[in-house]
Amino acid sequence: MSKIIMSDNDKSNVSHVFFDYNRTARVGLPEAVFCQGKETDTLRSLVREFHFNKTPILFTRLKPEVYALFTDEEKSYIDYCPLSATAYTSVLPKKDKGKVAIVTAGTADASVAYEAARTLSYLGVRHTVFEDCGVAGLWRLTTKLDAINQHDIIIIVAGLDAALASVLGGLTSKPLYAVPTSVGYGIAEKGNVALGSMLTSCAPGVAVMNIDNGYGAACAAMRLINSFLN
Amino acid sequence: MSKIIMSDNDKSNVSHVFFDYNRTARVGLPEAVFCQGKETDTLRSLVREFHFNKTPILFTRLKPEVYALFTDEEKSYIDYCPLSATAYTSVLPKKDKGKVAIVTAGTADASVAYEAARTLSYLGVRHTVFEDCGVAGLWRLTTKLDAINQHDIIIIVAGLDAALASVLGGLTSKPLYAVPTSVGYGIAEKGNVALGSMLTSCAPGVAVMNIDNGYGAACAAMRLINSFLN
Amino acid sequence: MSKIIMSDNDKSNVSHVFFDYNRTARVGLPEAVFCQGKETDTLRSLVREFHFNKTPILFTRLKPEVYALFTDEEKSYIDYCPLSATAYTSVLPKKDKGKVAIVTAGTADASVAYEAARTLSYLGVRHTVFEDCGVAGLWRLTTKLDAINQHDIIIIVAGLDAALASVLGGLTSKPLYAVPTSVGYGIAEKGNVALGSMLTSCAPGVAVMNIDNGYGAACAAMRLINSFLN
Amino acid sequence: MSKIIMSDNDKSNVSHVFFDYNRTARVGLPEAVFCQGKETDTLRSLVREFHFNKTPILFTRLKPEVYALFTDEEKSYIDYCPLSATAYTSVLPKKDKGKVAIVTAGTADASVAYEAARTLSYLGVRHTVFEDCGVAGLWRLTTKLDAINQHDIIIIVAGLDAALASVLGGLTSKPLYAVPTSVGYGIAEKGNVALGSMLTSCAPGVAVMNIDNGYGAACAAMRLINSFLN
Amino acid sequence: MSKIIMSDNDKSNVSHVFFDYNRTARVGLPEAVFCQGKETDTLRSLVREFHFNKTPILFTRLKPEVYALFTDEEKSYIDYCPLSATAYTSVLPKKDKGKVAIVTAGTADASVAYEAARTLSYLGVRHTVFEDCGVAGLWRLTTKLDAINQHDIIIIVAGLDAALASVLGGLTSKPLYAVPTSVGYGIAEKGNVALGSMLTSCAPGVAVMNIDNGYGAACAAMRLINSFLN
Amino acid sequence: MSKIIMSDNDKSNVSHVFFDYNRTARVGLPEAVFCQGKETDTLRSLVREFHFNKTPILFTRLKPEVYALFTDEEKSYIDYCPLSATAYTSVLPKKDKGKVAIVTAGTADASVAYEAARTLSYLGVRHTVFEDCGVAGLWRLTTKLDAINQHDIIIIVAGLDAALASVLGGLTSKPLYAVPTSVGYGIAEKGNVALGSMLTSCAPGVAVMNIDNGYGAACAAMRLINSFLN
Amino acid sequence: MSKIIMSDNDKSNVSHVFFDYNRTARVGLPEAVFCQGKETDTLRSLVREFHFNKTPILFTRLKPEVYALFTDEEKSYIDYCPLSATAYTSVLPKKDKGKVAIVTAGTADASVAYEAARTLSYLGVRHTVFEDCGVAGLWRLTTKLDAINQHDIIIIVAGLDAALASVLGGLTSKPLYAVPTSVGYGIAEKGNVALGSMLTSCAPGVAVMNIDNGYGAACAAMRLINSFLN
Amino acid sequence: MSKIIMSDNDKSNVSHVFFDYNRTARVGLPEAVFCQGKETDTLRSLVREFHFNKTPILFTRLKPEVYALFTDEEKSYIDYCPLSATAYTSVLPKKDKGKVAIVTAGTADASVAYEAARTLSYLGVRHTVFEDCGVAGLWRLTTKLDAINQHDIIIIVAGLDAALASVLGGLTSKPLYAVPTSVGYGIAEKGNVALGSMLTSCAPGVAVMNIDNGYGAACAAMRLINSFLN
Repeated sequence: MSKIIMSDNDKSNVSHVFFDYNRTARVGLPEAVFCQGKETDTLRSLVREFHFNKTPILFTRLKPEVYALFTDEEKSYIDYCPLSATAYTSVLPKKDKGKVAIVTAGTADASVAYEAARTLSYLGVRHTVFEDCGVAGLWRLTTKLDAINQHDIIIIVAGLDAALASVLGGLTSKPLYAVPTSVGYGIAEKGNVALGSMLTSCAPGVAVMNIDNGYGAACAAMRLINSFLN
Repeated sequence: MSKIIMSDNDKSNVSHVFFDYNRTARVGLPEAVFCQGKETDTLRSLVREFHFNKTPILFTRLKPEVYALFTDEEKSYIDYCPLSATAYTSVLPKKDKGKVAIVTAGTADASVAYEAARTLSYLGVRHTVFEDCGVAGLWRLTTKLDAINQHDIIIIVAGLDAALASVLGGLTSKPLYAVPTSVGYGIAEKGNVALGSMLTSCAPGVAVMNIDNGYGAACAAMRLINSFLN
Repeated sequence: MSKIIMSDNDKSNVSHVFFDYNRTARVGLPEAVFCQGKETDTLRSLVREFHFNKTPILFTRLKPEVYALFTDEEKSYIDYCPLSATAYTSVLPKKDKGKVAIVTAGTADASVAYEAARTLSYLGVRHTVFEDCGVAGLWRLTTKLDAINQHDIIIIVAGLDAALASVLGGLTSKPLYAVPTSVGYGIAEKGNVALGSMLTSCAPGVAVMNIDNGYGAACAAMRLINSFLN
Repeated sequence: MSKIIMSDNDKSNVSHVFFDYNRTARVGLPEAVFCQGKETDTLRSLVREFHFNKTPILFTRLKPEVYALFTDEEKSYIDYCPLSATAYTSVLPKKDKGKVAIVTAGTADASVAYEAARTLSYLGVRHTVFEDCGVAGLWRLTTKLDAINQHDIIIIVAGLDAALASVLGGLTSKPLYAVPTSVGYGIAEKGNVALGSMLTSCAPGVAVMNIDNGYGAACAAMRLINSFLN
Repeated sequence: MSKIIMSDNDKSNVSHVFFDYNRTARVGLPEAVFCQGKETDTLRSLVREFHFNKTPILFTRLKPEVYALFTDEEKSYIDYCPLSATAYTSVLPKKDKGKVAIVTAGTADASVAYEAARTLSYLGVRHTVFEDCGVAGLWRLTTKLDAINQHDIIIIVAGLDAALASVLGGLTSKPLYAVPTSVGYGIAEKGNVALGSMLTSCAPGVAVMNIDNGYGAACAAMRLINSFLN
Repeated sequence: MSKIIMSDNDKSNVSHVFFDYNRTARVGLPEAVFCQGKETDTLRSLVREFHFNKTPILFTRLKPEVYALFTDEEKSYIDYCPLSATAYTSVLPKKDKGKVAIVTAGTADASVAYEAARTLSYLGVRHTVFEDCGVAGLWRLTTKLDAINQHDIIIIVAGLDAALASVLGGLTSKPLYAVPTSVGYGIAEKGNVALGSMLTSCAPGVAVMNIDNGYGAACAAMRLINSFLN
Repeated sequence: MSKIIMSDNDKSNVSHVFFDYNRTARVGLPEAVFCQGKETDTLRSLVREFHFNKTPILFTRLKPEVYALFTDEEKSYIDYCPLSATAYTSVLPKKDKGKVAIVTAGTADASVAYEAARTLSYLGVRHTVFEDCGVAGLWRLTTKLDAINQHDIIIIVAGLDAALASVLGGLTSKPLYAVPTSVGYGIAEKGNVALGSMLTSCAPGVAVMNIDNGYGAACAAMRLINSFLN
Repeated sequence: MSKIIMSDNDKSNVSHVFFDYNRTARVGLPEAVFCQGKETDTLRSLVREFHFNKTPILFTRLKPEVYALFTDEEKSYIDYCPLSATAYTSVLPKKDKGKVAIVTAGTADASVAYEAARTLSYLGVRHTVFEDCGVAGLWRLTTKLDAINQHDIIIIVAGLDAALASVLGGLTSKPLYAVPTSVGYGIAEKGNVALGSMLTSCAPGVAVMNIDNGYGAACAAMRLINSFLN
């Protein structure tokens, strides 16, 4: 998005948004709308604009309380998921190849995992979510390991000590993207322990995204699918 | 809990939860439900499920405002304590041996202390809470020291400078678990000073739990009771 | 140790040290000499004093470069281990019961693990060190699990993401003391990630010591052995 | 590596090291020797062992001052690079496919970039190092962009504000692994700003490694090459 | 503002405020009212006072929910902008010379950018806002570069990794003031990464303001305009 | 306060509070009630208890929204100040000697300054509040310096960079207690900069209290008045 | 000290130092020389200058390795104490009144305690050092409490969890200055835990100095002695 | 500097360096050599290259112990200042206009102040250093204020609480660049308190550089001189 505003109207009556339509050509990923910090009216007009332009677009961090302020008609223009706080007007063409496994440590990691899952749905990429594989009960992971390894790329979503990254990283040869989550309380609050834990994983080649950044992990996976599989 | 969800239904219509029923055999402690971050409807269905299965289960971090959204019938299925934000459908069999003293520094530490106390009640372990033993008035601790020392295990709950850990740690030979609390303001906020203080206690052999983790201290105590006393 | 010095001689010509000989009666653990920050001459005179008094005493954090400044005779008075930087004049009577397993994640955790091991040797407690059980290669842990579980208490020593705590904590019912280590670089430096990871372990009842505090974990174990097994 | 040591010989006379020879089968990457914190004698015996076993092995974080203590014969067994502090006895078979671009922001990032480059050399992967592409002089990057984009995977190595990650991330569709470096002083010291900057990059799909972890980025690239190109 | 209150009336019935009317003479900038933490009644009486005194005054951090509590008459006394949370009773005389470019990385930086813009409006300084010039899409910046460079001073407003500072800093010879914003989540939260990134910018001579301090950047620009251009 | 609660009634039906009535004898200061984190019903019963016992007691951190829940009768028992969030049932006897100056940097520091002032009122100590002496307008301080220096003890209350501590510390020979405040935004948030600034003041002998701890500064002053002036 | 240097000789051939001789009149304390970061030659010339001027002056943070570079003659001009790293050319006149107790928690706090003690010696103030009163062995403190309470002012010096501040603060009515020390390892390193602990002490009226700032505590005590006792 | 290195010679035999000779045209400032982290041989060859090319070049962070390894001939090619750790082969043409005042709080800030001064000398800009103006002795600043205000731009260099920024910022209308220094110990260590203090200065329009970044402040000043005065 881009605009220039002169000092005569410095109260930000934001009139127009120019999208980076060229981004797909450059980086293989279309621009998305990050809703946090944007005003509801701006979001609503973007929904209408993309709907009428018949352009597939993804909205992330669209909180249920903001979505509730949309009109019924605006709501009908988008496919909304409250758990992941994502929405899209329509999805991109299905990719023929490339399957992504999204593996979470606990129930509380679901919102981040589904941000990744929904982003992949929007991008046309097949994926499976494996929930509740936390390593304090190893059987949860080991019984699903074969199914996980039948995917091309693995996204690990975990909070607290994020021990899942090292254990799963030691059991698979697949590319791994690890997303720390801001689950927990006390020293775990905000997800910095999980972030640190994933960055220092003993398993080789674990790459890490920002805390709660399920969207970013899906984008990283998309780079692989674009480069190697399609 | 464990489930697999395929990409066709990636909006997380969470249908089923598989508990780690085997955990008691492995680690001597049944799984509990950590309520923070879970949706109210999920919690309500878990309450009903465990009630009808006649399975004892502990809920932690069940905030009063969430509990208030339960139906009266659901409320009747559980024993709820707002101070500690805990609930259980029923308790496990009483342990014959093993008494735990829970010692707090100040009134503000009560919610954490009672999370430990209620977890022990659920686990069938006898315990006594000694409140307000902060060492800025040493007599508060010393007059209760004999009573405290008649227990097998001591859980220390303190915020701010958590000086109680060093003083009590120097006056008893019992196993000690120290729980820092997020009491206070300014530099004390969030409990990091209390955590650091307990980890650097001059008294030898003070073991520390995460901030506000009364549940964890009760579990640590349970490991001792299972291993040595029953 | 204790002394009073008047202002006339305020240059700290430290003449005498009074030990807390009564500590064993109070807390079941004798006082030890923490060498870091003490001057070499003070340490040397303590070695001689305890040798001639035939009193068993433990020295911790006695760096090799300090030990190298001792006379040969002083060296002959103590049993020194450079890896763990510990020494003792003689050991306490063997405990009849109680066996401690010390389990490390990697080779770099050895110095901390052996501080725990040597402290237990000094205290007369039997123990086994299981090195290199890091969970990035799960078989390293699982092949030793039965042997580990034949001990009464488990000390876990790990740096980096310290994922071992959650995995082993989910596979054993024994009392657990976790010691984070300051192994690694970047975000792992100083051991704060490992500390945070252990405090937020998903396995219930993991109690944590200060970073690199193998001595403290041995003391915590000793409290259990004193209370329940001897 | 793995060993068990009984309490009789608790002074850590480390006799033997068992490698995780199975790792390549599991994760597609052989184990490497992380030299930091290991004693020189241990490293020297490992060099000899791997040389005589004719097993290719990589040593990382082998500081020049440690290497200087090796005998000439031991030195002759390895290919040593002081800038990257890496060594190997021999390299693995050349991979037919897969080229990695390693792009740095400044001269001071070279040691980390070459840790990645040397790891790739050891793993048999072709690669090119593009140095000094920092975006304060954009032409440095833009004149090399076409050459960079002819590689399959891009590793970005940058310290300070690590702005290169966002700029290059917006100019390429290739998979990206970003390595923050501990270059600089003041608030830049230790690399935490660079780490935070890369994790919050505006370019989509930038995956991040621990500070100074060139080895990890090479391993992450290897997972892609193993999975998609060979 | 300044007052003395004796202990008899220590309940702070704040009666009167003395402004630093002399500040303009000393530092070339009039005092402004920082509304955060001030009570609504105090703010309302200040609005009336300055209106009736016909004194131009700027209010910063005047949240919409506080403004909503003003009477319609009070509202009519000020020019209010909700996006930037600023208001003024009237503006100072237009400066003949000096034009400031305010360049933002993304839409979410607008509130800070407009705090700077509105402060400049109040101070009588011409300026242009260039929004959405984030360097993940370099063309956004490069197509506006000539227009930006026709200004005398550049204020850069960016959150997350704030890479815009280094790129723009390398493309212009103008004085630069960089304002980090508290945009984003996870490690970006609170703006500390953006602050660190701007302070360590590779481009020479980038001067930095506190997080979200658009007002301060405008004041810094005003010092230049006062000193060199008027 | 002190109580013992047995495990049968572990839901914390807090029946009774025992005050440390002996504290005045030991430390010269009566106990106060810190309201934050205490339940409203507990506070209301304490108000009634102290009122009927005719015991002077101070309540700190009694937020207006909690006070609003008191009955009119309960409100009539106490003297309440919303700005400082303090209340007392009655005050202690006036001290004959000792005058305290409370000097603030800005209006936003008032709530903390008045917590100190009100505590001194309760303790019977004379005091004067000098507001808005921030050193960005030096005349604000210098014109009041003589009046300030006619007091026996000086409490400095300042947020942000807290530069007032060094400047005033260099202009007076009086005992100084500095209280940092959590005023401001960005890097100033929470008051850690002000705390650090006061602890590193160049003026010799500046002693510092916790952030926002006006109560503590008044207690520190009281120790001097008790020891030297009464 | 003060000087102006023109740009022609910008290599800092520091020719002259002007002391703040007026400081004693203003704040009751003469200026001291903080040696850290000053070059040895500067320190040596200051020693000679103050010796020949027969002016009493205190040097702090004068490390033994710097002192070793002085000539024997220069050494003869000062009274040097390596433990506290302090020196003075001569002392100020003895104060008739005012006795300060300096109480430490452990042997490792001695260097800071003696920095306070030596500063008091220089200032002519009587004092006693009570070492090793750490509260993990309460008898160490209680047996000396009466002697401590016979002093007018108490300086508490403690590292690690600094629990001594709360315990002693609850047992005395004297003015208290607490100095955290940078003793210990792991989370204790650098003294931040001790600082936080002292700032959040439960005992009322504990005022805190910067980490390791024994000099500052002595200055704070001097302000009291000047104001109230002489 | 820029080079491309192919994987055949990945041991970094750095052969050549390409300078950003175009930088002066773009940003008005020539590139400088930041010596920290560069190898001595590289620095020595740069010295020779720039000497023989008769190109003025500035070296920063050239530590005396590195300079000592230069040959006498190489030393003769540069003008070296050990205090500021800077060197240049020759200086740029004198600017006709623009005078910069560099004001420090204490002697320990000299190395940073002279890094700024020497950079200005190299850039051909007139400047004056005013040392030791710390506000704990206000007269030090006020007696020099008129002289300071006769300069066009002011650079403030201060560590610890950096109170000088607010005081001087309130006494001058000139453009201000504030450089925090890493002077001090305890909480002051590394300069983060000074950095935070300057960023939150109450004086309006204080712009801040990275800790110890005297070079950056000189560059910022140069941008003004280039834009407005020459």
